[in-house]
Amino acid sequence: MLVRVSLRCLKLADTLTSIGKAGLYSSMASMERNHNFFFRQLFDHESSTYTYLLGDTSNKEAVLIDPVYEHAERDANLIKELGFKLVYAMNTHMHADHITGTGKLKSLLPGTKSVIGKGSGALADIYLKDGDVVRFGSHQLWAAATPGHTNGCFTYISHEQCMAFTGDALLIRGCGRTDFQEGSSETLYKSVHDRIFTLPDHFILYPAHDYKGLTSTSVGEEKKYNPRLTKPLDEFVKIMEGLNLPYPKKIDESLPANRVCGVF
Amino acid sequence: MLVRVSLRCLKLADTLTSIGKAGLYSSMASMERNHNFFFRQLFDHESSTYTYLLGDTSNKEAVLIDPVYEHAERDANLIKELGFKLVYAMNTHMHADHITGTGKLKSLLPGTKSVIGKGSGALADIYLKDGDVVRFGSHQLWAAATPGHTNGCFTYISHEQCMAFTGDALLIRGCGRTDFQEGSSETLYKSVHDRIFTLPDHFILYPAHDYKGLTSTSVGEEKKYNPRLTKPLDEFVKIMEGLNLPYPKKIDESLPANRVCGVF
Repeated sequence: MLVRVSLRCLKLADTLTSIGKAGLYSSMASMERNHNFFFRQLFDHESSTYTYLLGDTSNKEAVLIDPVYEHAERDANLIKELGFKLVYAMNTHMHADHITGTGKLKSLLPGTKSVIGKGSGALADIYLKDGDVVRFGSHQLWAAATPGHTNGCFTYISHEQCMAFTGDALLIRGCGRTDFQEGSSETLYKSVHDRIFTLPDHFILYPAHDYKGLTSTSVGEEKKYNPRLTKPLDEFVKIMEGLNLPYPKKIDESLPANRVCGVF
Repeated sequence: MLVRVSLRCLKLADTLTSIGKAGLYSSMASMERNHNFFFRQLFDHESSTYTYLLGDTSNKEAVLIDPVYEHAERDANLIKELGFKLVYAMNTHMHADHITGTGKLKSLLPGTKSVIGKGSGALADIYLKDGDVVRFGSHQLWAAATPGHTNGCFTYISHEQCMAFTGDALLIRGCGRTDFQEGSSETLYKSVHDRIFTLPDHFILYPAHDYKGLTSTSVGEEKKYNPRLTKPLDEFVKIMEGLNLPYPKKIDESLPANRVCGVF
């Protein structure tokens, strides 16, 4: 099992020797899009969490990003109907507002591995480091460390499909809060500016949540219209300090459960 | 103004003389996808309504399908931010569960025309007949009459993008109810089987609603897994008769408002 994992989780750097980092976006963006690629956005009304199913329609391997415990059966059923084999149930970070579906999905779909960032503090089968690549069929997601909301936050980037899954680092015209877990406004600002805003403007961004009925955004839109992250760092820090958000409703049950992969 | 409308709303039949109906799907599916095409799904939490923004990124013309009154400002703001000019605010039918945003959007974005099916019973600037084509920039939506939930239900099909907006005719693993307005289970069954299930399996279907956190489906999935519409007609009619659904919460305010384009 470990051999399989180490074969799948290759460093992106290994694939870059011939093209160099500067050529990465144009090279990958010019690859044929949508080839054997399946994508479906899913939603949890209670926590306003988005879950994402990505698959290879040829060899039928799939990954699920940020599944929610209460929807594990819905998701497993959809995956079965579509004929996919769930290879990885991944989280962008250890969530404080809902319990992850990864543990339950591992029971419902045996063979599934749970995946999370190394600094998350959560149990999983596979821990990602910055630059790791998660493969499913002929497709891949590049794991970019984007801490600030928590220490273990990752953004998963598909250069081939020109899309990125930003978790709570970047939300649509907003961002994740920085006032609990290991939150740091300075770190979050740097993560978004260094790792997300440096992607091409046309890349579509899919966040872990939205509360206003918006389902996605783009790098170009957020660089222009994000009311917090377009500000200079010091202003951003002041905005985040002044939010005065309520204590997260489900944090006291979510964090202990999510530390053990949602199996409680 | 009328000249512009008549130029835009051409019969699809006019474009088919050289390729014939049999060659339509393969011919259009092979056109370059995503070329200058913008797509964004939007959501109303209260009525679980999906609204769709489609645009041409070159000449910046856009259409909005099934906007919701309470989100007209959100939608107008997004359209402005993206630099689009809203040409048409369209409805798939006269809704009974929410008030349309078309009237309010016409005030917020002057120049916008409201569009609805001829048999809907609702006021609009433009009434569609079966086979009409709605153009925005270099893109087009083919209006296919799919009555049964109401008399005026239309499905809007983009052959170029392999997607269709089914309104309440076909929902994900379900369908619209047939027990009010001009509902007819037999008519709905025929509409879905004749006009939606005859599209290629890979066409993505975007409904007007979903209540389970699913955001889209495909023709192939619904032909295989729709628990109602995969049944023979007589069984489908019995299922629909046995639903015993509650009286729609907002029908008494929605229908009078929607008869006048949501301006009340």
